[in-house]
Amino acid sequence: MEKLKKYVSVKDEDHFYHQGAVELLIFNFLLILTILTIWLFKNHRFRFLHETGGAMLYGLVMGLIIQYVTKSPDVESGTVYECEKLKSGPSTLLINITNQVYEYQYKREISHHNVNGHQGNAMLQKMTFDPSIFFNILLPPIIFHAGYSLKKRHFFRNLGSILTYAFLGTAISCIVIGLIMYGFVKAMVHIGQLKQWEFHFTDCLFFGSLMSATDPVTVLAIFHELNVDTDLYTLLFGESVLNDAVAIVLTHSISIYSPKENPNAFDAAAFFQSVGNFLGIFAGSFAMGSSYAVVTALISFMHLTKFTKLCEFPMLETGLFFLLSWSAFLSAEAAGLTGIVAVLFCGVTQAHYTYNNLSPDSRMRTKQLFEFMNFLAENVIFCYMGLALFTFQNHVFNPLFIFGAIVAVFVARASNIYPLSFLLNLGRKQKIPRNFQHMMMFSGLRGAIAFALAIRDTGSQPRQMMFSTALLLVFFTVWVLGGGTTPMLAWLQIRSVLVGVDPDEDLKAKAASQSASNLDKNTTKAESAWLFRIWYGFDHKYLKPLLTHTGPPLTSTLPEWCSPVARLLTSPSAYGDQLKDDDTVYIINNDELTENCESSAHIPVLAQDSTGSVQATGKEDIQEGDLGLGGYKLQLQHTADQPQKNSLA
Amino acid sequence: MEKLKKYVSVKDEDHFYHQGAVELLIFNFLLILTILTIWLFKNHRFRFLHETGGAMLYGLVMGLIIQYVTKSPDVESGTVYECEKLKSGPSTLLINITNQVYEYQYKREISHHNVNGHQGNAMLQKMTFDPSIFFNILLPPIIFHAGYSLKKRHFFRNLGSILTYAFLGTAISCIVIGLIMYGFVKAMVHIGQLKQWEFHFTDCLFFGSLMSATDPVTVLAIFHELNVDTDLYTLLFGESVLNDAVAIVLTHSISIYSPKENPNAFDAAAFFQSVGNFLGIFAGSFAMGSSYAVVTALISFMHLTKFTKLCEFPMLETGLFFLLSWSAFLSAEAAGLTGIVAVLFCGVTQAHYTYNNLSPDSRMRTKQLFEFMNFLAENVIFCYMGLALFTFQNHVFNPLFIFGAIVAVFVARASNIYPLSFLLNLGRKQKIPRNFQHMMMFSGLRGAIAFALAIRDTGSQPRQMMFSTALLLVFFTVWVLGGGTTPMLAWLQIRSVLVGVDPDEDLKAKAASQSASNLDKNTTKAESAWLFRIWYGFDHKYLKPLLTHTGPPLTSTLPEWCSPVARLLTSPSAYGDQLKDDDTVYIINNDELTENCESSAHIPVLAQDSTGSVQATGKEDIQEGDLGLGGYKLQLQHTADQPQKNSLA
Repeated sequence: MEKLKKYVSVKDEDHFYHQGAVELLIFNFLLILTILTIWLFKNHRFRFLHETGGAMLYGLVMGLIIQYVTKSPDVESGTVYECEKLKSGPSTLLINITNQVYEYQYKREISHHNVNGHQGNAMLQKMTFDPSIFFNILLPPIIFHAGYSLKKRHFFRNLGSILTYAFLGTAISCIVIGLIMYGFVKAMVHIGQLKQWEFHFTDCLFFGSLMSATDPVTVLAIFHELNVDTDLYTLLFGESVLNDAVAIVLTHSISIYSPKENPNAFDAAAFFQSVGNFLGIFAGSFAMGSSYAVVTALISFMHLTKFTKLCEFPMLETGLFFLLSWSAFLSAEAAGLTGIVAVLFCGVTQAHYTYNNLSPDSRMRTKQLFEFMNFLAENVIFCYMGLALFTFQNHVFNPLFIFGAIVAVFVARASNIYPLSFLLNLGRKQKIPRNFQHMMMFSGLRGAIAFALAIRDTGSQPRQMMFSTALLLVFFTVWVLGGGTTPMLAWLQIRSVLVGVDPDEDLKAKAASQSASNLDKNTTKAESAWLFRIWYGFDHKYLKPLLTHTGPPLTSTLPEWCSPVARLLTSPSAYGDQLKDDDTVYIINNDELTENCESSAHIPVLAQDSTGSVQATGKEDIQEGDLGLGGYKLQLQHTADQPQKNSLA
Repeated sequence: MEKLKKYVSVKDEDHFYHQGAVELLIFNFLLILTILTIWLFKNHRFRFLHETGGAMLYGLVMGLIIQYVTKSPDVESGTVYECEKLKSGPSTLLINITNQVYEYQYKREISHHNVNGHQGNAMLQKMTFDPSIFFNILLPPIIFHAGYSLKKRHFFRNLGSILTYAFLGTAISCIVIGLIMYGFVKAMVHIGQLKQWEFHFTDCLFFGSLMSATDPVTVLAIFHELNVDTDLYTLLFGESVLNDAVAIVLTHSISIYSPKENPNAFDAAAFFQSVGNFLGIFAGSFAMGSSYAVVTALISFMHLTKFTKLCEFPMLETGLFFLLSWSAFLSAEAAGLTGIVAVLFCGVTQAHYTYNNLSPDSRMRTKQLFEFMNFLAENVIFCYMGLALFTFQNHVFNPLFIFGAIVAVFVARASNIYPLSFLLNLGRKQKIPRNFQHMMMFSGLRGAIAFALAIRDTGSQPRQMMFSTALLLVFFTVWVLGGGTTPMLAWLQIRSVLVGVDPDEDLKAKAASQSASNLDKNTTKAESAWLFRIWYGFDHKYLKPLLTHTGPPLTSTLPEWCSPVARLLTSPSAYGDQLKDDDTVYIINNDELTENCESSAHIPVLAQDSTGSVQATGKEDIQEGDLGLGGYKLQLQHTADQPQKNSLA
């Protein structure tokens, strides 16, 4: 008997391992197909289907195949067993079956009406992986990469607008979707498709918040390829990155909002608790992410006399960088904050400080590593979304709800972009033109974050309906809006920076803008965002010298009585490297850009808007996500404007 | 009620996510500590504790902390529930508990005597992750990296010896350990520590096979750092890489061996079935791995007229390379073969063919990516081993068994190295000296593979005893033998290549060897491994031109009547790049080396043994795991010996 048991258990185990391998192999196969397709498309300059759209399509087909080819119903699965001895579901369950003890692990809670859905086959069940893999493994590299490759200069130049779209815009979008969906839900209750108590206003708001996370990855990839206007790129990129963070925290806050009495009535106390919760979590996550990045910067900056610098061991440096950044995410999650927000700001801070301390080898290693991880994670998620349409067992497709959601999403996007752009244009010197607004409206794609938020909880029927609807909206927006990007750009006459700009004209425009900047320098200096000027001054004088090898030595920036401390804290290389401060350059360039853009803002065709130094300095930004390399190029240009620097310093 | 349920479920889920984050965070923290420690050690040139040893130590401490600090017994866990309705354990179990259906997933089978062990805390249970993660995620990058960074030239020069140690040596080791352990088991039964029927001879052999997988990662790291003799390095590295593959397949074959009657008696049919199984699995895995690599090579080589080459998109190229290599592993697993063997030979073949087709950017990307993944995976495994000493719930420490295992492992290593070295020295022109043999004996560390094989099945008490013993042996060998490497090298007078070699003397030796090679060329050509000469001729003439851009064009190597086919298949760049064929160089160099080494083999101090062209060509190999760069360097040297090449071609 003993022998027999051993034999069976080995066979079972082998079967188990092979199962895991088969699932991973399917994903590998889909990704390989996707890569080969991208290659094909790149060869034919075919831009109607982005890689993510392709990944989704292949996932869909694979899901269909698995669904209809490997149909082997597992009879046991549909049966529900009674267990009266248990009071609550323990995490591990030991069950004695025919004199053999088996260990079972808690997976999830199922509503009664879903029990029948479990008669599907085992293969499908295994292909649907744990949502925590999304949150802990797949999303962090994508978000970190977004933060790490943020075009700092253009981002900070448009920070006001980006923050407005991200915070105010997401809130507007969430409320508008919530209201419209509440109307549709009421209608559904009226015609008897839904029971009153199943869907509260907070559920609608929950749906609104998760559908407010935009992910214009397809659009941005095309912008990147066509070298579309840098400012439009930055506005969209910055908005979508921050907006994800806002939407995630918002979703969390709404799920916590629980009015004491009638769930449909407004409870001021609970509302303010949620608002406080939102602010607290956002600020906490921000602090957590930045502090991990500062620790990384400090470690990579250490210049103790007896120690070789960490940058002499690129592997250790890359490893530490990777692990500390991931830890920012995990610590935030473990502390009950939002890891995505933490890892986003960790990425931004790493790019700002740590990147300067890395060895050239590590700079390339980290950049390539995160690029690669981002590429893989993104395509895995989109493949999985395709698969989920068939592998997820409890879809609830309600035509009215889906129609409502499509309407709501578009109305919400419109009431986010147009009114806010109008308000922003009142304050902005460089207006956001009409066709940019249309393009931003059009780029309201939904993607990984909306999906991940929706799949997090699919326990009840309303949640399942939300998940199915969110999935369909992702499909629709990625394929239709993503595919329509190139025609839309042509139709809106948003031309790429490269096309139609005469190099001579470019030089002239630059010269003109420089002379203009010399004239109006004082006025623009006062006008341009004073808050960031203060921050930049502080950052440049104190933080950069403390955390990196760039910037002026602390001995020259700190007051005289601090000089012993300053001398202790200053990197020896800072004395020699005084030219390396790209921030002064930034500020000047900032002014230049603003003026330059202002002077050409009235010319209707927008390619003109981005001539001059926008093109000269913005070009390599878009092409490479350069992270500081642009700064060095600027120095060369900058040495010619020496008087400017001196007047600022 | 609905609201309450939702609220609870959200809270539960959050808790769940945070748990996952906490576990990952602990690993991250351990890895960060390990990296900082390595940095510290590298600064102080402290070589008594390697990074893997450090990782294990930190894991141990963390396991201890978790064990004694977070003691929160989960009362439910220890209870076994009866379920008479079930006949066998289904993969998914639905249970109705207080009117709510919960889904449970099958985890494993537990022996009755282990049930009490489950009263440990939930944290510990969560820290012990699924063995399939080892096999599917953590091991492949390590093994692939080993294959990809194999020093081809030195490896093939010592291939005969390496194969002997790997195949014959592992078999000897397995049988010796099995026999000794069977003796100890008999003794244990005699004194009543074990029941007769629990431990068969096949179980002892199983233990022998898993303990035969050596992993001298610590030793090799020190060799690398100290630039120890290339041949010793290659012998050890090659042996350990192939030996892992052999041990894994052997373990599988033994676990399948099931004699029909008395399990202790010898059953010839079952034995030959196991042998056939071993050979079939090994050959199949080899074929699977190589064919994936050939596919990768072909894709990266494609030069269709309309297509840009894949190498113009380094990201896609790297992605495809990574995914196809991993697929080699997964396909082999899915087909019931051994993924580790497949991925090993996939790595070797990728390095041989595909690497030549990659863009310079991708060469660096892939190399750095696999290096990084190897680094992370290795440290995670060693951390986990440290943790496992405390987190694994069902340890069975039997002093007699452990003592027996230590004795068995050392005797087995000795009866592997010394007799085989004696036999090999009869055939080798360059003898394996006594002190090399002692060093190889000393480098029989056990590591990740032994651990992974042991943890794969811990269902029964004998298997748990094996696992606990294997774990202790890993600790012992990594710390004691790994730490003793540097003193041992000094004691055995194995000096590093760099130290004590006068550059002038080096040049003289080289000149002497060259003149010698010119004299005896014809005799040595016939003497040196004829099998590999045939293979290299075939590879150089047909495979390399077919799969890569190196080597002579097919038009010149194929017979005349094949010329239309040849012209079709030849890369246009091959015509221009005829100088790029490093294999001719290799063969010549091979002869040169052999002679050179032979001429100096009688000089006792071994640093002398590695002067001349061994040093000239082997140096950069060890330092960078260069993969072909060495070939280019050789060409420079080679152009001087043009007559030789012509006489060979």
